[in-house]
Amino acid sequence: MAATKPVAVGLIGAGRIGSFHAESIARRVPDATLLGVADPAPGAAAKLAAKLRAPLHTTDPAELLATPDLEAVVIASPARFHAGLVEQAANAGKAVFCEKPMAVTLTDADRAITAARRAGVPLQVGFNRRWDQAFAEGRAAIDAGSIGTPQLLRSLTRDPGPLGNASGIPPWTIFLETLIHDFDTLLWLNPGSKAVDVFAVADALVKPELKERGLLDTAVVTIRFDNGAIATAEANFSALYGYDIRGEVFGSAGMVAMGDVRRSSMTLFDKDGVANATWRRDTDHFVGAYTAQLTAFVDLIRKGGIPAVAGEDARAALAIALAAVKSVSEKRLVTLAEVQ
Amino acid sequence: MAATKPVAVGLIGAGRIGSFHAESIARRVPDATLLGVADPAPGAAAKLAAKLRAPLHTTDPAELLATPDLEAVVIASPARFHAGLVEQAANAGKAVFCEKPMAVTLTDADRAITAARRAGVPLQVGFNRRWDQAFAEGRAAIDAGSIGTPQLLRSLTRDPGPLGNASGIPPWTIFLETLIHDFDTLLWLNPGSKAVDVFAVADALVKPELKERGLLDTAVVTIRFDNGAIATAEANFSALYGYDIRGEVFGSAGMVAMGDVRRSSMTLFDKDGVANATWRRDTDHFVGAYTAQLTAFVDLIRKGGIPAVAGEDARAALAIALAAVKSVSEKRLVTLAEVQ
Amino acid sequence: MAATKPVAVGLIGAGRIGSFHAESIARRVPDATLLGVADPAPGAAAKLAAKLRAPLHTTDPAELLATPDLEAVVIASPARFHAGLVEQAANAGKAVFCEKPMAVTLTDADRAITAARRAGVPLQVGFNRRWDQAFAEGRAAIDAGSIGTPQLLRSLTRDPGPLGNASGIPPWTIFLETLIHDFDTLLWLNPGSKAVDVFAVADALVKPELKERGLLDTAVVTIRFDNGAIATAEANFSALYGYDIRGEVFGSAGMVAMGDVRRSSMTLFDKDGVANATWRRDTDHFVGAYTAQLTAFVDLIRKGGIPAVAGEDARAALAIALAAVKSVSEKRLVTLAEVQ
Amino acid sequence: MAATKPVAVGLIGAGRIGSFHAESIARRVPDATLLGVADPAPGAAAKLAAKLRAPLHTTDPAELLATPDLEAVVIASPARFHAGLVEQAANAGKAVFCEKPMAVTLTDADRAITAARRAGVPLQVGFNRRWDQAFAEGRAAIDAGSIGTPQLLRSLTRDPGPLGNASGIPPWTIFLETLIHDFDTLLWLNPGSKAVDVFAVADALVKPELKERGLLDTAVVTIRFDNGAIATAEANFSALYGYDIRGEVFGSAGMVAMGDVRRSSMTLFDKDGVANATWRRDTDHFVGAYTAQLTAFVDLIRKGGIPAVAGEDARAALAIALAAVKSVSEKRLVTLAEVQ
Repeated sequence: MAATKPVAVGLIGAGRIGSFHAESIARRVPDATLLGVADPAPGAAAKLAAKLRAPLHTTDPAELLATPDLEAVVIASPARFHAGLVEQAANAGKAVFCEKPMAVTLTDADRAITAARRAGVPLQVGFNRRWDQAFAEGRAAIDAGSIGTPQLLRSLTRDPGPLGNASGIPPWTIFLETLIHDFDTLLWLNPGSKAVDVFAVADALVKPELKERGLLDTAVVTIRFDNGAIATAEANFSALYGYDIRGEVFGSAGMVAMGDVRRSSMTLFDKDGVANATWRRDTDHFVGAYTAQLTAFVDLIRKGGIPAVAGEDARAALAIALAAVKSVSEKRLVTLAEVQ
Repeated sequence: MAATKPVAVGLIGAGRIGSFHAESIARRVPDATLLGVADPAPGAAAKLAAKLRAPLHTTDPAELLATPDLEAVVIASPARFHAGLVEQAANAGKAVFCEKPMAVTLTDADRAITAARRAGVPLQVGFNRRWDQAFAEGRAAIDAGSIGTPQLLRSLTRDPGPLGNASGIPPWTIFLETLIHDFDTLLWLNPGSKAVDVFAVADALVKPELKERGLLDTAVVTIRFDNGAIATAEANFSALYGYDIRGEVFGSAGMVAMGDVRRSSMTLFDKDGVANATWRRDTDHFVGAYTAQLTAFVDLIRKGGIPAVAGEDARAALAIALAAVKSVSEKRLVTLAEVQ
Repeated sequence: MAATKPVAVGLIGAGRIGSFHAESIARRVPDATLLGVADPAPGAAAKLAAKLRAPLHTTDPAELLATPDLEAVVIASPARFHAGLVEQAANAGKAVFCEKPMAVTLTDADRAITAARRAGVPLQVGFNRRWDQAFAEGRAAIDAGSIGTPQLLRSLTRDPGPLGNASGIPPWTIFLETLIHDFDTLLWLNPGSKAVDVFAVADALVKPELKERGLLDTAVVTIRFDNGAIATAEANFSALYGYDIRGEVFGSAGMVAMGDVRRSSMTLFDKDGVANATWRRDTDHFVGAYTAQLTAFVDLIRKGGIPAVAGEDARAALAIALAAVKSVSEKRLVTLAEVQ
Repeated sequence: MAATKPVAVGLIGAGRIGSFHAESIARRVPDATLLGVADPAPGAAAKLAAKLRAPLHTTDPAELLATPDLEAVVIASPARFHAGLVEQAANAGKAVFCEKPMAVTLTDADRAITAARRAGVPLQVGFNRRWDQAFAEGRAAIDAGSIGTPQLLRSLTRDPGPLGNASGIPPWTIFLETLIHDFDTLLWLNPGSKAVDVFAVADALVKPELKERGLLDTAVVTIRFDNGAIATAEANFSALYGYDIRGEVFGSAGMVAMGDVRRSSMTLFDKDGVANATWRRDTDHFVGAYTAQLTAFVDLIRKGGIPAVAGEDARAALAIALAAVKSVSEKRLVTLAEVQ
């Protein structure tokens, strides 16, 4: 049996989640190796490359993309650069894993999708929740018909963290970067459906003083789908009790519920009652999901097939996010047709 | 020590829930006795009175109300008669416990409230969920400051039953009779707040053929409160898995969650996995809450005080329901001011 | 329909649990009335009778038993008097509900059983756990064959309280008064079986200073049954986290588990994690079970039938307790035959 | 920064669990590489080595141990060969990870421990349960004093599998190979304690026809520790509902409970009630723990320190197992002193 060479992967964007993905490639994903890191911040790429023993580092993504041995990239730059980097990487013939959101406009999303298609390279998007064991089992139960036709859905993201340093957070982040996960989850858990219209409410309840800068930290979005199902997506940026991600799909024959903020089955009983510790960070809660999505990406490169999370999926979730932004601005129901 | 005479209570409306309340008065509520039953359906009052050993029965509520020994009534007629019967009972000087909704128009609600005030009789409304152990503990935690300021709320009602025989169900039942519970719950779990505006989506997903008759069976309502909190109320009329009532309040310092469709702690583990039986009927799930609210009503009569659920509470929940009806009709955000 | 007269019940023993039973009869059990209270402690019977509006009170049980209108008694005296009082009551022709343990020797148990049989009066014993919703559902699942043949059983009692004032606690209380519940539960959850042999370990771990007085506060008992099943019963007198009662039956086809110290579904999530309040007292946790067993007793008197918990059941549990006592004393396996 | 060379590990014993460990080394454990596989069964080592791209394979463990580049071995042969292979490997200067039980006699255990000490090589034993997130958190809570002094402990192993093909199962397997996990867990969760005496009951309830061959499939063991704590260990070889591993430690100030047979948070609600899927195999349930223990072993080799699970720990658990075997044979309480 001939040994297969590990897939040589490069990272663009050595921030928090990019560094975590690089570590996954270097240490947790079988059959992959971290070839290099690119980040414009002076020293960032060098430091991460050294830590993870990656041979290359650069401040210029183009330089990384020009490396012949490089087969694939993980894009984890700030969101506004995602789509352009997908295009660049595709044009360079590299397989692309892009963090969510893949784009912040539908035009950009289309260009990224087209670039990958033209180049014939795999393009996978980082909706990691689909790889979580509980969510994957929920989808499997739906596919098996266990809950009948979906009628009511819910997906929520409550994050203990992102407002810690609000300076770098762009307006509409709650829709474009946070709830985009929930929008994808809802589409995915209502297989074959399309969103029809959206009504959204959002506010700055955690840090009211940031509202004038456009920083909303609390949002509730109602989405109607073409199969009649009605969904609610909900987010908040300051869950003091932990990193709380849940989904629920109610259908004509039953319901599936996914997600538990409790960290493990360890339960403490003392004079104050019963207590459980909680997940505090996405990279702890979803380490399995994060590893699984990159493993699937590497398998996709080696074995071919259709990406589990394609550029079109990213586009569909983005369209909902843009409709939600418009709904908040105009305080009215917005159809998906309006934002296409 | 002088024995106190039990409170003599009459029932108006011997339907499913009325019969259950009469049984509670006769058998589960201490210090109360069932004096009589009134119901216009031939034989209904007589049959229930005989079963529960109540001395009086009549087809005419006025006759029951004219009984001098009668101290209080439980009103459980069809909803459209509630407010008028509250007035009649108050005018007759009887303490009134009225099932929800206390009224189906705000004018009627005001008349009922005024009648009780003028007569100086206690008026309590049947929002039984407030008396459930879990919901009461949730509210206590909120009062204790354990979750800080409420920011996101959720209340849901999923009922296995009401569409079994749809013939008697009036249009907008899902808002006026079902979600009215959730609207009250949300107001009560966000103490001191007022609803500001409402957006609702509803459909006939369980029985699409009934949609033209105005029978909606699935609804999602978003409510914004004057303290900034955003709430979702959700209902469906065909939960195959049981009688599912839940509440959740997320605040600046934490969250409380209430409600579990599992019937008891008995858990079965077999070749198919882990299984729990569920609550199938309101009168099983909430037997404690139903008993507690009537016990409180009897105590209120004997000991005085302020009703735990007043006519004004019923009015506030009704206003949200009416705004939701308007929102569905007009597919737009409706302010509470518009329906007052 | 002719009204049935409520069953007139008297209480013997106005201590904590006796007072609670009297209150159940007076306020929670339908079709029963509290006729009188007997307790030798000066003033105790009078005080309780006044509180619950019972017409009779006496310091002499014989006087209560001589009341012609009295139909039944609840015996809640100290355990060593139980069997004698059962005999007296039976001889007086009264139906008997006796708190556990019904007797502290097998000879006494036999005399009590014989007296009730001769007098033709119902005799029911206070193994309240059988009436708990979860335990009853567990037994029903076993009867339905859901777990196959029982192979491993567990029952435990952890009580936050009884050592508060240790002065009145007799030696071997942990076996004769506490674990007797678990022994009955295990026999009942292994239907048709008999205990074969017993091995017990016990110690004074909570209050080592009381060991010399024979007060053991921690015990583990292994019981082998004639169908091969092996059971563990476990008790401790100082569970700081609440009143913890659980059962588990593992069989050839599955398992049932019963009991949860969490008080309700209300769950608090805050900066410290996830928290639930717990049951702290038997009379809170098992108010439903306590009411149900007395309701069944009243029904038994009115409708006849076989007691759900008979004197023979009390005798079988007692035999295990006595074998456990012997096993601790002699540090060896003791067969049931040795104690009969 | 200089790259560190991965630790070169060899496997001895390419059976089910050995193959899994080899896969962990090759794919899941960072900084390790699978150098070779030894297994006397013709073709077994070759096949596994090919699959995992390990350069060496042999039917002779001694040949593997003679490889100069080999730094460490994982021993996963049949249990009776463990201790001898530990000695051989230690004498060859290799770091040793040995599956449980490290030995089946105390003499063998001592020889293995001595060999590793003399050779100065790390020796770690495969009590993987210690590395499970929930169990590790439980131990941490005990170390933090959250439950006070342990008084009652419980550990159980219920396995859906091992009797499928009973032909290769030696007598006393339930004690020496299965409950050995629980004995280690109990010692570890009662830090600093020593077992004093043991009483065990065991039977062939799953397959009574195998009893004459000494194959017991159900066992309950009571262990008393020198700090007064009393523990129960329980095992059964045919849990139809899944791979059920739990632990519970009750102490003077509270309790910790660990283990849940539910596979994920995904919960299905349908007409039959509430359902969860379960863990079915150790290698699914404990993939994290299995990876963590080998990662710790590799770290131990590179960074030095004290093994988290030492040969002495294996010896202490073995002594309890041997006392349990004796207790079953002689139907009496056996002190640890008797088996030393």
